[in-house]
Amino acid sequence: MTAELSHSLQAEDPVLAYHRAGKMEISATAPLRDADDLSLAYTPGVARVCTAIAADPALAYEYTWKSTSVAVVTDGTAVLGLGDIGPEASLPVMEGKAILFKQLGGINAVPIALNCTDPDEIVETVVRLAPAFGGVNLEDIAAPRCFEIESRLQELLDIPVFHDDQHGTAIVTLAALWNAARVTGRELADLRAVVAGAGASGIAVARILLDAGIGDIVACDSKGIVHEGRDDLNPAKRALARDSNRDGRTGSIADAMRGADVFIGLSGSPMAEEPFATMAPDAIIFALSNPNPEILPAAARRYAAVVGTGRSDFSNQVNNVLAFPGIFAGALQVRATRITESMKLAAARALADVVADELTPDRVLPDSFDTRVAPAVTRAVAAAARHSGVARV
Amino acid sequence: MTAELSHSLQAEDPVLAYHRAGKMEISATAPLRDADDLSLAYTPGVARVCTAIAADPALAYEYTWKSTSVAVVTDGTAVLGLGDIGPEASLPVMEGKAILFKQLGGINAVPIALNCTDPDEIVETVVRLAPAFGGVNLEDIAAPRCFEIESRLQELLDIPVFHDDQHGTAIVTLAALWNAARVTGRELADLRAVVAGAGASGIAVARILLDAGIGDIVACDSKGIVHEGRDDLNPAKRALARDSNRDGRTGSIADAMRGADVFIGLSGSPMAEEPFATMAPDAIIFALSNPNPEILPAAARRYAAVVGTGRSDFSNQVNNVLAFPGIFAGALQVRATRITESMKLAAARALADVVADELTPDRVLPDSFDTRVAPAVTRAVAAAARHSGVARV
Repeated sequence: MTAELSHSLQAEDPVLAYHRAGKMEISATAPLRDADDLSLAYTPGVARVCTAIAADPALAYEYTWKSTSVAVVTDGTAVLGLGDIGPEASLPVMEGKAILFKQLGGINAVPIALNCTDPDEIVETVVRLAPAFGGVNLEDIAAPRCFEIESRLQELLDIPVFHDDQHGTAIVTLAALWNAARVTGRELADLRAVVAGAGASGIAVARILLDAGIGDIVACDSKGIVHEGRDDLNPAKRALARDSNRDGRTGSIADAMRGADVFIGLSGSPMAEEPFATMAPDAIIFALSNPNPEILPAAARRYAAVVGTGRSDFSNQVNNVLAFPGIFAGALQVRATRITESMKLAAARALADVVADELTPDRVLPDSFDTRVAPAVTRAVAAAARHSGVARV
Repeated sequence: MTAELSHSLQAEDPVLAYHRAGKMEISATAPLRDADDLSLAYTPGVARVCTAIAADPALAYEYTWKSTSVAVVTDGTAVLGLGDIGPEASLPVMEGKAILFKQLGGINAVPIALNCTDPDEIVETVVRLAPAFGGVNLEDIAAPRCFEIESRLQELLDIPVFHDDQHGTAIVTLAALWNAARVTGRELADLRAVVAGAGASGIAVARILLDAGIGDIVACDSKGIVHEGRDDLNPAKRALARDSNRDGRTGSIADAMRGADVFIGLSGSPMAEEPFATMAPDAIIFALSNPNPEILPAAARRYAAVVGTGRSDFSNQVNNVLAFPGIFAGALQVRATRITESMKLAAARALADVVADELTPDRVLPDSFDTRVAPAVTRAVAAAARHSGVARV
């Protein structure tokens, strides 16, 4: 693109203008005005801090930004709905994530966009760069590599590793579903759900709903229902086939949706409308694909009591931003070594409870900028970390 | 260390108090107050920026912080005079560096402290994490690995790679020496210099002085003069033996110093005073080891017309902070692909010229916080980059 064309684009497009020179910066939190400050911040004074940490590496949490820093790591292979656009092109999303981390959770998040995609290489790279960070947020890494990368990294590191596309979505979806059940007079255990899409987020949503005690859940991929009789499943889907779909259903997504109480769309694209008409009364539809949901809210409302999407221009936005700042703030507050299942469930519960007294079918989640959310999630996650035995302080 | 002990240390030590929770943070440069801002900074708007960069990766310089970001990379093996203290313990120095980068050069520098020390591993790790950064500042990596790491990285990357312990020190020392020669009525070509210490900075200082046209230079390591007859030299010292020491001197550092015009100390520790008494009239002594210079200024003044150290509590402080912010700011301004020798010489010349009209034997360099320095160095480096053909804009 020529400089001229890029300039004319900028003149036309407020999004590009907003992004000029990036969205974030680093600044000093301590004064640095003169030689006296310099002798504290840098040589010779700083040597005393280095010596203290060399004697006890845990003091890095006291005297460096490790206590508040998170590496936001991507390989650029699954960016938004855009797919594999590479590390440079992923940077605007990583910077957006970083400024949300700061604004909502007080976390200093650093975009790390890797130009390697091999899981072995990603794992060894993140292990090597980990010492400066209190946590690792994996972002926009394609399935199924993301599962292996997350679990291997968590095994090798003593700081939390969290793939937000999986668990952030799962936590917020669970919170929304808890409240949707509440507002329609049911319990999670009463509900049979269908998840359209068995990628990173679809599998994670199914997993957390099973952990939270949902009645049943059936996951579907592009070939239909994920069941144990299929021989084309990757290990993550095979494990899910074993743990979900209690009635052993087979067939298409339309077969799965017949009589279902809950639809959760994470498939990436719009669907035919007919199957929604076959769902149970008082259905709950979360059509979360972005920017084009599986079904638009106006249509979904004909078949459902509660409707949500991933978009900010409709009510009930299921947005990861409700989870990740508080999750990491809570984990870092207690210097957690990992993020356990019970910390995720506690985050979802806290998030749901923020609007417990304000519930309506159009308000099963707080707004993305509700300032009550991150502190509530932070407290719940820190407490659950202590309870799980993964807190260091 | 217990929490109690660390608390009592903090109460006693203003350095530790200054460092509590680290010295830096990340913040947003664009407003992020509501759903409208969010739709620009994050989904759905950000997708347009990603798409533009995917089509032309150079646009990362326009729309992300790549245009101002530098990775400050260390393996923690040669931190200050403390040696191999590991990555966590190096972090206070890296944060100090980062805030100086920001304050003086407007650069967003991110500490990357690696827990690997193998050159192959360091090189492949930095190559993988490079896409988010406009440059790489290598820091406190032990010699001789640092030479190989820098040159291999620069070969593999199209952004500047700069080992500050080598070239920052070299640039500021050259500037100081130019002005010391000027103030004592000589030219660089008239001078014979001795460098005590043939590690990363000693070799780099010798190299830049040779490039700048010094009369002669003799480097010494712990075994004495570096000369071609020795069979115990690493490749960097062997190459230096070939290019320096024109008279083919052998023997001890005391032999080298007899009749020398210039002494540059980068050996790490104090020396006997006698050899300084044998230097030529109007000698120049830069005793740069920190915190304990090779000779203290009070003693050095008995034998020299100009005396400098690495310390802020004496005059003529040779401090890298006079170079690295402007070097990177100039290189990033023109999106340079590397930092050439001519860019380094231009930086030294610009730095020397800042105090050209104020020269005295006690003022051959500007103060560390002289606000004229970074802009002058930035301009000179950007112009030299264009002249060298390594500028992209």
